[in-house]
Parts: sequence; structure tokens; C-alpha cells
Amino acid sequence: MEIIILRLGHRLPRDERISTHVALVARAFGASAIAYTGQHDAGLELSVSRICANWGGRTVSGSQFSVSYEKSAVPFIKARKRDGFTVVHLTMYGIPFMERIERIKSAGKVLIVVGSEQVPREIYELADLNIAVTSQPHSEVAALAIALDRIMEGKELSGMDFGGKISIEPSERGKKIVETPKAGQ
Amino acid sequence: MEIIILRLGHRLPRDERISTHVALVARAFGASAIAYTGQHDAGLELSVSRICANWGGRTVSGSQFSVSYEKSAVPFIKARKRDGFTVVHLTMYGIPFMERIERIKSAGKVLIVVGSEQVPREIYELADLNIAVTSQPHSEVAALAIALDRIMEGKELSGMDFGGKISIEPSERGKKIVETPKAGQ
Repeated sequence: MEIIILRLGHRLPRDERISTHVALVARAFGASAIAYTGQHDAGLELSVSRICANWGGRTVSGSQFSVSYEKSAVPFIKARKRDGFTVVHLTMYGIPFMERIERIKSAGKVLIVVGSEQVPREIYELADLNIAVTSQPHSEVAALAIALDRIMEGKELSGMDFGGKISIEPSERGKKIVETPKAGQ
Repeated sequence: MEIIILRLGHRLPRDERISTHVALVARAFGASAIAYTGQHDAGLELSVSRICANWGGRTVSGSQFSVSYEKSAVPFIKARKRDGFTVVHLTMYGIPFMERIERIKSAGKVLIVVGSEQVPREIYELADLNIAVTSQPHSEVAALAIALDRIMEGKELSGMDFGGKISIEPSERGKKIVETPKAGQ
């Protein structure tokens, strides 16, 4: 399965940290790539690249996790649809996630669209599914995490191999970062 | 079960939106209250209060969701421990979440501590459990959402009743907000 993310309407400085969190959740929870529209943000791209350089960017599909800027959402979404992606737009106005999970999981390729403040009507029309992770106002970071967690069936919680230079050795009270042996890279 | 959240070290303006997302996730995913330390932020409190006023603040334990400022984390945590709360600190350095989920779920009262950039050593010592939602760098918003989701066994995804003035009627492509009938309030 291939999962990619599109973050809409990134605004500086307002969305700086939220979009970074969206991107890091995408990486940590099994997506292969994130694209974003709105304002170009070299800082966002650098933050994500640095995380990948140290912690690894190996994705479930074997590729390296990537972040890229797109001028316009609609052509990007249309191109992915032509490539066979099922487009899942996360919105609190949509159908409850668990009512559509089987359909999403049966798709081989999924584009998850994560909105910002005002999502244009056209996105709702273009999406194959408009899906709500709870019908309550909360956070696109949380919505994306839960959506990916359910699609991945929780696999991301039991330690995926990102092929990084460093990784964490879980501990009861400490902070243990270890260098990963080169073998297996 | 009663779940409360403590957000550590809120900084203005840097954490304005992240802490708001943490608070809204707390509400939407079944916690009863959030307290925060760091800089006092009337705007954060107002945002959360407004959401509760419109969308409802009824919690699983029957109380109204609340947000409050605390001067210092340590006395707050110690007081909750005396009250019988199990203290779960979310940190990527901790033990994988799923290895401790049964212990957390069997606790009647849980305080989930959500860090910011630098969490003092003392918090690791005070916590009953230091728990990682993936051992990868991502987002405290996502970590909290996944933790609450697992503790709540996904109940938050099937529509909890917050007793709000307004709520969403899920739709395939639209945005339907409806006023909630007074009965049952």
C-alpha cells in the first residue's frame, strides 16, 4: 500500500509548526511522502529533511520519505487520481472514518488531503471520500495520526525500521539515543 | 475512568496553536480537563471555552471539560498522585505504548503529561510510566490523540455526546452544522 499526504494552504508564520507536525506524523505513521500548497517554506522542508537524515526516511513502500511544494492543489489531486490514488479528504464535516475504513484499506494507493482554515468547495468535490476523525473540532495533526494508525492497523506503534543513523532504545526513565549499526542499511 | 491532561511549558507565541490543538484533542478524545504550565495564555483558555460553549463540554465522567493554568508542574503532579492518579508521561524515549496499555487502562484515574521542548528530569522520575507513541520524533498532538484513542478503545470515533448547542451532521460532500434540540441537555 502506498500512502501520500497533501497539506493544503500552508501559511507563514501561522502554520509553521502545525505543518511540520503534520509532516513528521506522515513520516512516523507510514506515509511515503508529503506535498504542501500555500506559501513555500524552506524551513519546513529543512526540518523534515534533517529528521530523515538522522532518524531515517525509509518508508513502508521502500522509497525515501520526501517533502515537496506544489503550486496548486487541484492539478496535483487530479494527477494522483489519474495514477489510481483514492483521494481521502479529512474534514470534520465528513462521514465517520470507521464507516469507510474498509474501503480505504482496500485501495492500493491513497492520497490523504489535510486542510487548513478554509478548504475550497472544489476539494470536497474532487475527493473520493470526505472523512471525519470524530465530528468535533480538534486538530489536523491528530486526525492524520488516527487515520494513518487505522490504515496501518497500529503497525507504526510497534517500531518500524526507518533505516536511520540514530534511533531510540526505549527506557523506563531515561533518554537513550543509540547509533544504528551500518549492517541492514 | 477519569483522564486529565497536563501540558508542560507553554511558550508564547511559539506554542499558541500547538497547545490549543493539544487542548482540543483532549476534549474531543475523552479527557475531562487540561491544565497547563509555562506562560499564562488567556487566548488559549478563551479558544477552548468558546469551543465548549458551542460544541459542548460534557465529558465521559459527566463533568464539564475545563482548562486551567498551573504555576508549577511538580506540585500539581504530586497532588494528583496523592489523589490516586496514575501519571503517564508521553515521551518518545519511553516504553512503547502498547506494552503498557493494559496497565494504563486498568487505572481508574490517569494523568497524561504532555511535554514541550525540554522536559525536566524530575518529570521522568515522578511519572509512573514514561511511554512512547512510536519511538520517532513527531508531535505531542498526535501522541496524545493515539494514547487517548487506545485508552478509549476508539469510542471517540463513533460520536460521543458533548451536549453542545451545535453539532455536525456527517455528509458525503457538504458542511452541515445543526442546532442540537434542547431535550437531553
